[in-house]
Amino acid sequence: MQHTEKHLKSSDFITDTVIGMSDGLTVPFALAAGLSGAVSSNMIVITAGIAEIVAGCIAMGLGGYLAGKTEQEHYQSEYNREVMEVETVPEREKEEIKEIFAEYGFDEEGQTLLANQLAKDKTKWVNFMMKFELGLEEPNPNRARNSALTIGLAYFVGGLLPLTAYFFTSTPREGLLVSALITTICLFIFGYFKSKLTGQSPWIGGLKVTATGLVAAAAAYFVAVSFDKIFN
Amino acid sequence: MQHTEKHLKSSDFITDTVIGMSDGLTVPFALAAGLSGAVSSNMIVITAGIAEIVAGCIAMGLGGYLAGKTEQEHYQSEYNREVMEVETVPEREKEEIKEIFAEYGFDEEGQTLLANQLAKDKTKWVNFMMKFELGLEEPNPNRARNSALTIGLAYFVGGLLPLTAYFFTSTPREGLLVSALITTICLFIFGYFKSKLTGQSPWIGGLKVTATGLVAAAAAYFVAVSFDKIFN
Repeated sequence: MQHTEKHLKSSDFITDTVIGMSDGLTVPFALAAGLSGAVSSNMIVITAGIAEIVAGCIAMGLGGYLAGKTEQEHYQSEYNREVMEVETVPEREKEEIKEIFAEYGFDEEGQTLLANQLAKDKTKWVNFMMKFELGLEEPNPNRARNSALTIGLAYFVGGLLPLTAYFFTSTPREGLLVSALITTICLFIFGYFKSKLTGQSPWIGGLKVTATGLVAAAAAYFVAVSFDKIFN
Repeated sequence: MQHTEKHLKSSDFITDTVIGMSDGLTVPFALAAGLSGAVSSNMIVITAGIAEIVAGCIAMGLGGYLAGKTEQEHYQSEYNREVMEVETVPEREKEEIKEIFAEYGFDEEGQTLLANQLAKDKTKWVNFMMKFELGLEEPNPNRARNSALTIGLAYFVGGLLPLTAYFFTSTPREGLLVSALITTICLFIFGYFKSKLTGQSPWIGGLKVTATGLVAAAAAYFVAVSFDKIFN
């Protein structure tokens, strides 16, 4: 059990980092790229980029927090429903146990034994139904907070990297070139290690992540330039 | 089983919509608010906002897609590991079954009966271990694609609403006031219904969501204005 829990926690952390870093490396970069095609001052690009990072970092962190809380409350409301069902319709719940076990090839005798033994302790019965009928694990109570911090920080770090290019260049066009170079490298490294952690081919994973970032940036650039041409 | 699956799917959809809409209603709004304090033209605010929406929509959608794929691949790799364990160390796996059932109050006789019955069919055995030892459900194969579309669309819709204010006003300051008003109302309505769907108090939920959006916008505004003052 110790091993399993550890495993699941590390997977949560990786998922959160991937969520924050994917967007962090992509959105501020793509926004800056889009603006680079439409404005003439690096200062505006940087100001917009920083406003975006702050906004995205807080919004995504809080988004992760809310998602974690929702998961927790969902578990709790399902739990309460199971408690009520075990209290009010125990025979129907016993039939449910038997049906579930029948699917795994248990015979009538095994099913009945299982249902009767489980029914002896209502708390264990409910825990059993949660895990087995509904496939729900009790969420880590710190999940929401950890999720918020991990996603927010990953977004912040990922977002700042592409923006640095505009500090050291004099026009948005130059900034965009350097930024695209930095970001392409970062996206590939990120995709490479992400894929390695999740047991996929790191080279293909790196290319996929890089491509998605560049697609988002190209789309933002195209839309911003078109918009600027139409209205100016 | 039918009921459970339906339930889980609807929860995925809600989670995705909440993720996309939370950020969509918050980030472009907060970015526009931040820029409103630092630039003098509505056009720049709108261009940046649109570039952000396009970038965020694609990046978040793809983020959801990657997260869904990671979940699927995680399930597959755990599945393969269980298959190998059942083949190579069946006795240890049987002991694991007995230990798990012991926790739920089954006696020695029940544990042995269960372990022996399960061991008869290796496919069912592995499925059982996945669900029961690891608490993993086989993910919906369309989850990644659905996730991408739901998150992306929710982000797009959520992001466009606050931006409309800058079309119908003549200065960023006026735009910000109208945008803040529109967004506050939208955030509250979104939070209200989101909370209702997840079985929480809709009024408190509405206020929480509204507060998080305004906090992100205030932070972005403060940082953009400070940055503008320091460097201009």
